Amino acid sequence: MIRVGTGFDVHAYDPAAPLRLAGLDWPGEPGLAGHSDGDAVCHAIVDALLSAAGLGDIGGLVGVDDPDTKDAASTGFITAALKRLAEHGWQPSNVSVQIIGERPKFAPRRNEAQRVMSELVGAPVSLGATTTDHLGFTGRGEGVAVIATALITQG
Amino acid sequence: MIRVGTGFDVHAYDPAAPLRLAGLDWPGEPGLAGHSDGDAVCHAIVDALLSAAGLGDIGGLVGVDDPDTKDAASTGFITAALKRLAEHGWQPSNVSVQIIGERPKFAPRRNEAQRVMSELVGAPVSLGATTTDHLGFTGRGEGVAVIATALITQG
Amino acid sequence: MIRVGTGFDVHAYDPAAPLRLAGLDWPGEPGLAGHSDGDAVCHAIVDALLSAAGLGDIGGLVGVDDPDTKDAASTGFITAALKRLAEHGWQPSNVSVQIIGERPKFAPRRNEAQRVMSELVGAPVSLGATTTDHLGFTGRGEGVAVIATALITQG
Repeated sequence: MIRVGTGFDVHAYDPAAPLRLAGLDWPGEPGLAGHSDGDAVCHAIVDALLSAAGLGDIGGLVGVDDPDTKDAASTGFITAALKRLAEHGWQPSNVSVQIIGERPKFAPRRNEAQRVMSELVGAPVSLGATTTDHLGFTGRGEGVAVIATALITQG
Repeated sequence: MIRVGTGFDVHAYDPAAPLRLAGLDWPGEPGLAGHSDGDAVCHAIVDALLSAAGLGDIGGLVGVDDPDTKDAASTGFITAALKRLAEHGWQPSNVSVQIIGERPKFAPRRNEAQRVMSELVGAPVSLGATTTDHLGFTGRGEGVAVIATALITQG
Repeated sequence: MIRVGTGFDVHAYDPAAPLRLAGLDWPGEPGLAGHSDGDAVCHAIVDALLSAAGLGDIGGLVGVDDPDTKDAASTGFITAALKRLAEHGWQPSNVSVQIIGERPKFAPRRNEAQRVMSELVGAPVSLGATTTDHLGFTGRGEGVAVIATALITQG
């Protein structure tokens, strides 16, 4: 059995926060707002994996007002999602992620981020980044959007 | 044979219309504008299924000016799309849907909506919902966007 | 082995440029800005294919400042991406593309564009088009967004 899942997440920039994206720290870059560390790449991956398996979404996995997840590393949400998938016999085949935004410049650290995320997911995770030609909220530098698509298999 | 398809749809809110989304009625919620009932979830699913099978898109299935489809229930478009897929030997494996918007609050009725849509499609349909941190047209509460990804098989 | 990939691209309109979209010329339509010919459909397909195979993105394939690719036909980028996939034993199963924008009116030339792109990719390419109900930058006629999802297999 094979299934596909899509996740989407947006976070506004919060210049007062440190940036955490794709499991990496980005010193000197404006951060992303959020109850957790605001790592929109992790959040979109979690939603893609859970959606593929029909196991809800990140809101059901993580209490958005839960004091335990305040400023939490979102990599932990991926681990929690994978645990739920495994309990139902699902394992990820691969995840493809598109980051949409002006910052950070992603290409120089893409390989590093892909290694970290692929090791975490236990399957290939591809990360790409693009801009929107200065159009829309991502083009105005107001926030970052992330689309993730996951393929998972069972049995 | 296995194929993937992506659908995307946006509808503006029309507070004067009743809301129909994911095959459910949402009393008290602002509706979505559209020639049919404006159910963007159904429309994105139809496009994802037709695109996966290479059978056109919702515009070819439903005349946008057709008086027969004025205010029509969009669940019927899914049935029509599945009929076309079946005629070509295709059946859906699963559909993953991400709803992007401020309203309605989706989580409380997610399970109900998933049951209705999965029964209609004859395969698992996962429905998630997210907001855009008050950014862009969805964040300003102007409309709802829906991304759907479908996996289909033949033979 | 089967893998999924997602690509996303946005280009602003440049009325002074000729429009090139989905490998076709569109005389009389406002063009898309870009270092190459601005064919956002080709760019999104390239990113979807490369991402599925874990082989980077269009930025690594095409130097954005490379004088050789100034005004280049983006169909050549697809050929280059497929060559990289083939070197790693991957071949596309299908690609599903959603074009989001006010112009050009796509439906009248959809079959023609699908033939051109499917022949180029060597697998079925489905092309759909939708608008955003006059919302957001696509709805204001500022640019075109394209989402592509690819399924590829190995062995």
